[in-house]
Amino acid sequence: MNIKDDIKAYNEVINAYLDKLLSEKDEDLTIITDSMSYSVKNGGKRIRPYLVLKFSELGGLDKFNEGALSFASALEMIHTSSLIHDDLPCMDNDDLRRGKPTNHKVYGDAVATLAGDALLIIAFEIVSDAAAPDKAKVKAAKALSVLAGWRGMIGGQIMDLQGEKRRLDDREFVKMNALKTGALLRSTARLGLAAAECDDKAICRDADEYCACIGRAFQIRDDILDVIADQAEFGKPVGSDAKNGKTTVLSYMSLDDAQALAAELTEKAVKAIEKYGDVGKELAEFADFLLNRRI
Amino acid sequence: MNIKDDIKAYNEVINAYLDKLLSEKDEDLTIITDSMSYSVKNGGKRIRPYLVLKFSELGGLDKFNEGALSFASALEMIHTSSLIHDDLPCMDNDDLRRGKPTNHKVYGDAVATLAGDALLIIAFEIVSDAAAPDKAKVKAAKALSVLAGWRGMIGGQIMDLQGEKRRLDDREFVKMNALKTGALLRSTARLGLAAAECDDKAICRDADEYCACIGRAFQIRDDILDVIADQAEFGKPVGSDAKNGKTTVLSYMSLDDAQALAAELTEKAVKAIEKYGDVGKELAEFADFLLNRRI
Repeated sequence: MNIKDDIKAYNEVINAYLDKLLSEKDEDLTIITDSMSYSVKNGGKRIRPYLVLKFSELGGLDKFNEGALSFASALEMIHTSSLIHDDLPCMDNDDLRRGKPTNHKVYGDAVATLAGDALLIIAFEIVSDAAAPDKAKVKAAKALSVLAGWRGMIGGQIMDLQGEKRRLDDREFVKMNALKTGALLRSTARLGLAAAECDDKAICRDADEYCACIGRAFQIRDDILDVIADQAEFGKPVGSDAKNGKTTVLSYMSLDDAQALAAELTEKAVKAIEKYGDVGKELAEFADFLLNRRI
Repeated sequence: MNIKDDIKAYNEVINAYLDKLLSEKDEDLTIITDSMSYSVKNGGKRIRPYLVLKFSELGGLDKFNEGALSFASALEMIHTSSLIHDDLPCMDNDDLRRGKPTNHKVYGDAVATLAGDALLIIAFEIVSDAAAPDKAKVKAAKALSVLAGWRGMIGGQIMDLQGEKRRLDDREFVKMNALKTGALLRSTARLGLAAAECDDKAICRDADEYCACIGRAFQIRDDILDVIADQAEFGKPVGSDAKNGKTTVLSYMSLDDAQALAAELTEKAVKAIEKYGDVGKELAEFADFLLNRRI
């Protein structure tokens, strides 16, 4: 199976699972569940859940293990929450996300704020309910909360805000990306291996190295796409980073140098993971896929 | 010891524990930890953590058990997060909270949004790290996420927003309060008893009844105080519910009838809990204290 078909097959399973998790309704509260579902079902690439599932296999679980699917879905809820809050007028003030109106454009700022909160919270409900041992659930909740929280993703968003006011220096810029994009990507290995109750030191270290490298490469590619992408395909306004005065990798180097750096990081990621049998090879292929993605 | 001294003694322990949990710093991220601390340390009454600790004792733990303190602190982080987001311009747009400028007035809307997010997330980190068995942690995370989430506190905030646009009917009004204020108060029993690994059916049922009743009485007293309180003492603008066009209990009945209803609910709470020895009596006294509070 080629990588695109593999991603497609995983996405179908992930999307069905997300649908199931968001199927509960209350007639007095339809606006909040509608708002949550609107953003979760808004055509996400499901990169993070895909990685959680692959790492659960690397740790020894069967494909589409139910506990791993729960952890994968919890992470996607947190990721979606961050997108909703990021798009708010008081943050990036974006009107479009994946080609559709952003959450607050449809539901208003108040409901969008609460939908982001509810998605953060439901992530931990999903972890609590997962078909996994209590020890694995606690490990997953810990990884998610540390890597999404103020020392992780939220910290990256804080540095990103600072980068709108002044140019970040090299160290700050690398750290900002390691937190903003890198932290949740690194959580994929922790979650997948936690689901599999795998604590083999070498595997954990190599998986973390892989995640750290693709995280950096992913953000570089994102910055590049913000300049070169086709707007209809990309789904959000091209050039919005420049518009918002964001510090991006292109504040530091040329397009060609940035793509070369992303390629170098991808190669490092591949080297760390390709030795782990079929799943290792699939993860290596996935890193290459991310490097050359157009959306 | 009288109830006020008891509350004071507990608050000292709780505040020291919250301080400890918020003591970690990162020089690039001081604005987010400052913003989180600003609101957590802003003179909260610590009603919810007090109740968690009392319920942990009702379940058989020693006073100030470390696991119970963690669960109590996690709940206070979520409560604080909800206050920060509630005060935002896109929500209630309040400038004062407990007599001080609201979080977004000090740190700006973007940082306040992220501080609220970070406090939601850190709650689950604290639960994961608690000195308690994994089973108790999973139970605590489940109770917190269900009762704070879209079917709980967030759902109540959604109904509260709807109540600004149209008059809620009686059923909706009771449900709104049961979710907005009641849900987190009900979580106190679940968290305290989870820390104590107590699943005695009678205790769980009576504790839940107590919480449901004081939750309703608490919200009624809050609506009354919004009208009769001394502004300097109350710490937020008196009459802000009317200003915001909020549906409150006083949209349905007179001040006297409202206070009588609160007294009736408090009596019900007392009856449910006073039979449980010394801790039961303390909880009964606490219910009376809440009924007559001035702030």
